[in-house]
Amino acid sequence: MKWSQCHIYTSKEAPADAEIASHKLLVRGGYLKKLAPGIYTYSHLLLRSIRKFEALIRDELNRCGCTEVLMPVVHPSSLWEETGRWTEMGAGLLKFQNRNQHWFCLAATHEEAVTDYIRHDIKSYRDLPRNIYQIQTKYRDEIRPRFGLMRCREFIMKDAYSFDANQADALKSYEQMYAAYKAIFSRLGLEFRIVQADAGNIGGSQTHEFQVLAEAGEDSLLVSTSSDFAANIEVAPAIDPESVKESTEVFLPIEKFPTPNLKTIAQLSEALQIKKSELVKTLFYSTNEGFDPKDKSLKPIAILLRGEDDANPVKIKNVLGLVNPPLMLTDEEVKEVTGAWPGSCGPVELKIPIYMDTGVSKLKNFIVGANEDGFHLKNVNESRDFKATQIADLRMAKEGDLCPSGQGVLKAYRGIEVGHVFYLGTKYSKKMQATFLDKNGKAQPLEMGCYGIGVTRTVQAAIEQSHDVDGIVWPKSIAPFHVHICALDVKNEKLMALVRQVEYELEASGLEVLVDDRDERPGVKFKDADLLGMPIRISIGARGLEAGEVEVVERKNKVVHKVAPQEVVAKVQSLIKEL
Amino acid sequence: MKWSQCHIYTSKEAPADAEIASHKLLVRGGYLKKLAPGIYTYSHLLLRSIRKFEALIRDELNRCGCTEVLMPVVHPSSLWEETGRWTEMGAGLLKFQNRNQHWFCLAATHEEAVTDYIRHDIKSYRDLPRNIYQIQTKYRDEIRPRFGLMRCREFIMKDAYSFDANQADALKSYEQMYAAYKAIFSRLGLEFRIVQADAGNIGGSQTHEFQVLAEAGEDSLLVSTSSDFAANIEVAPAIDPESVKESTEVFLPIEKFPTPNLKTIAQLSEALQIKKSELVKTLFYSTNEGFDPKDKSLKPIAILLRGEDDANPVKIKNVLGLVNPPLMLTDEEVKEVTGAWPGSCGPVELKIPIYMDTGVSKLKNFIVGANEDGFHLKNVNESRDFKATQIADLRMAKEGDLCPSGQGVLKAYRGIEVGHVFYLGTKYSKKMQATFLDKNGKAQPLEMGCYGIGVTRTVQAAIEQSHDVDGIVWPKSIAPFHVHICALDVKNEKLMALVRQVEYELEASGLEVLVDDRDERPGVKFKDADLLGMPIRISIGARGLEAGEVEVVERKNKVVHKVAPQEVVAKVQSLIKEL
Repeated sequence: MKWSQCHIYTSKEAPADAEIASHKLLVRGGYLKKLAPGIYTYSHLLLRSIRKFEALIRDELNRCGCTEVLMPVVHPSSLWEETGRWTEMGAGLLKFQNRNQHWFCLAATHEEAVTDYIRHDIKSYRDLPRNIYQIQTKYRDEIRPRFGLMRCREFIMKDAYSFDANQADALKSYEQMYAAYKAIFSRLGLEFRIVQADAGNIGGSQTHEFQVLAEAGEDSLLVSTSSDFAANIEVAPAIDPESVKESTEVFLPIEKFPTPNLKTIAQLSEALQIKKSELVKTLFYSTNEGFDPKDKSLKPIAILLRGEDDANPVKIKNVLGLVNPPLMLTDEEVKEVTGAWPGSCGPVELKIPIYMDTGVSKLKNFIVGANEDGFHLKNVNESRDFKATQIADLRMAKEGDLCPSGQGVLKAYRGIEVGHVFYLGTKYSKKMQATFLDKNGKAQPLEMGCYGIGVTRTVQAAIEQSHDVDGIVWPKSIAPFHVHICALDVKNEKLMALVRQVEYELEASGLEVLVDDRDERPGVKFKDADLLGMPIRISIGARGLEAGEVEVVERKNKVVHKVAPQEVVAKVQSLIKEL
Repeated sequence: MKWSQCHIYTSKEAPADAEIASHKLLVRGGYLKKLAPGIYTYSHLLLRSIRKFEALIRDELNRCGCTEVLMPVVHPSSLWEETGRWTEMGAGLLKFQNRNQHWFCLAATHEEAVTDYIRHDIKSYRDLPRNIYQIQTKYRDEIRPRFGLMRCREFIMKDAYSFDANQADALKSYEQMYAAYKAIFSRLGLEFRIVQADAGNIGGSQTHEFQVLAEAGEDSLLVSTSSDFAANIEVAPAIDPESVKESTEVFLPIEKFPTPNLKTIAQLSEALQIKKSELVKTLFYSTNEGFDPKDKSLKPIAILLRGEDDANPVKIKNVLGLVNPPLMLTDEEVKEVTGAWPGSCGPVELKIPIYMDTGVSKLKNFIVGANEDGFHLKNVNESRDFKATQIADLRMAKEGDLCPSGQGVLKAYRGIEVGHVFYLGTKYSKKMQATFLDKNGKAQPLEMGCYGIGVTRTVQAAIEQSHDVDGIVWPKSIAPFHVHICALDVKNEKLMALVRQVEYELEASGLEVLVDDRDERPGVKFKDADLLGMPIRISIGARGLEAGEVEVVERKNKVVHKVAPQEVVAKVQSLIKEL
């Protein structure tokens, strides 16, 4: 296909709002053009990559008996009210009224829509199992879109939903989709990890994320050095290294002491010469889920952690049985609850529930804020000086922690979440009366699972993992074209005849070819070829033409092969096969 | 593919809101399931048809150098404000605020988006021509969705936009797309007409509609019996048959006479024994476009027509240079303007602009309302008794009128508009500063055209044109499957082995096969096969199996062919070829 038919316009500079390499390269290559924050037009080249990835997904899902349909983008409020998610989903669900004053939303996910779709069809256990999927535009009203297609508003997703007669079958469906996803991302050709994850407000218990590894990834992953354990940091159990021992001290008398200007753990640690891991910090969260707009109460809780540990809001959410991770109190709210500003607060004589991380329970005679500005307490001990409502794993695990499998330690990676599988159970089917008659003729709620792949996000993740200083290095599975021919003198008729012949032969052999037939200097063409990133570049110039030589260049490593025109197809085929 | 993997659930009854055959059949065949009024989930089978039609469109558009991209569904208000269509589009454009209180809309068309997409890329005449298209979900907030996918809210469209350096080139692009559309609808295999049409509020001058013929179509078409003239009734010039002569009477004195209870043309005609074609009716419209919500003025006009003619709001719109067809006044508004209720109104001494249809100018000494309830005037004549602001063609043309080409007369058809090509000129490029440098280095606005195909609407139109009392008769071009195999005894292992063999051989020959492997009676399977409408049905039963015979049935005419199993593929291939 000719350059002009692809409407390609590259640029040297990336826009100011592009923070990561893949976003910069997508914009510089003209792949992506912003219409509004988080809302983009996909160029012809990008669309080719997207369609290839979609075809790859379809192939694997159809292979395991899934049924492709297409569900609407615009949903009526009544549908989401059936499950309570009209309010639970929060502000990310974009809601609006139509001209008849009826409420609708732009679908961010389709559990309700698919359950409605099948609930009047599936009548008997004989209709099961069923797995329905679609590849469709979705919308999430991101408050601050960033990173191009990584955290945007309008995007393309593949979402699948399984329906089974019982939990055992549902877990079989889960395993099948897990395997299909593994096949999809393996065929894509990217380095990825499958990690345990949190179910968020989709609901359900068993869940895994498929994470493409990349330094710019927004997710922190912890992977065992010796077992197959891998988890999103949100859910990774925190187990101290063996070097961290439980204190064997006896309780000393509690004592208040002045700590003017010592407000942070770092300041305290330095001033008192005590390791951070032996100090205790107190954090405050509101557990008011806020679904009832009239309920303005804070419902505060305190969280106790060792000074060097970070609170894990997902673990707190799960320990407390909340739908969403809780929000931290503002400084003013903390003052109202404790009588002191943050930095001088602690658990002693606090009248709110106190949740203590298991790490803190290893300490004795520790230091906490006195709930009086400028004062701390020393020799504080749980059970004697305050009572924890619950002691639980509430901290972020970190590199070096022991692996929960008992083998090895945890190593940290950054990842981009591109896929997610959930076992949902009967959360949606019960609320939406989606039942079937079992073998005994008894109505039972359907057992469900849901399975998502961020199609557009994955395509960008491929670039984030696979690029160099000059541009994109497309994996061959989703490269817009396999071959990029640079015609180096478009006024030379003999040369252009060879270009057309090489293009024709390559296409006849099943490869997709982009021909840069612009009247531009070779340097411009090479720079653009590197930026756009097709796996193989062929340069046909006047000098080579006379020598009966064509340059075949591998994008990945820039290795140049000089071959005769009649050998081009075979050479390209063999290079592509090796990729 | 197995029946169960397609998730097919048919029903005997159509829902109450399905008025036309295609809508009923889509719902009964489980092709379409309503989520909200005008918002549907497309089943696997329907999606297959849609994808086939999309592939056919792509093939023809790529062949003539068009570039496929994907533009967003959600657009910022600022984009539409550039062209003034944020207000001009009216209530069909669904507008909403996001969580940050910024205004957006769901795109119903993409002239603004595509112009924004290319305006910073196209710098020179050397970048032209360019034709950008997409196949994408669109939304129109229909106040009263009807007829399934015919007049729905969420739908799939193919929209293309051409950009040229001058009008001559733009008209060449127009001709090219006209030819591509002709090829697309010819390959689809439906009976269609290409008709002159009105540009609506898209703007532009030259425009044609592609209309699939069907009795239930919402559009009236007039086609010449002897030339290639064809037009949507909205724009068909009205030329009286030769039998209608101009009156040669002399003006008689005007006279008021009482007409109590004579309010309609029919009542007057009967009571006075005067042909409807010799009576004159006066209609009233408001020409306030209403873009300025503060401007509540009526701006009324009167339209004079012969009693048997119908007003053509599109012609009125065009004569007056309005953006949208004008709305009729309410009875109360008419009373306010004329002093009388509708039925007693007329042009004499009226203080508002009067537009008179050319047909009326053939009459002399005609009867009109007296603008006094219960009275009419006779012997009224234009020029003496009132002055028409303009005399123009304002009526609907009709079957029997002369063809504007001068050859033959007009014949009426009903059609479903499935495609539309527009020459736009510089309406959008001027407002959006989309310019290029011409050969003299001077900035010029781009010449544009736009070209739409209602993808989902066309698929339903195919059914509306091609069905019988038992169900759908898919054209082979977009049939979900080519062949539907009814396995008549799924417990007979030998029979099922033959079913699998036939399926395999047909698929190996490039045909798509649906296998009804349900444990159901033959009658149920045949009824469903007829309803679903694949071009060829194969029935494999135990009795035939013993006789070494398989039934191959043509859906179109129900002709049954009995063939040996090894001859099935050849037979089906030859039947499909003939379709």
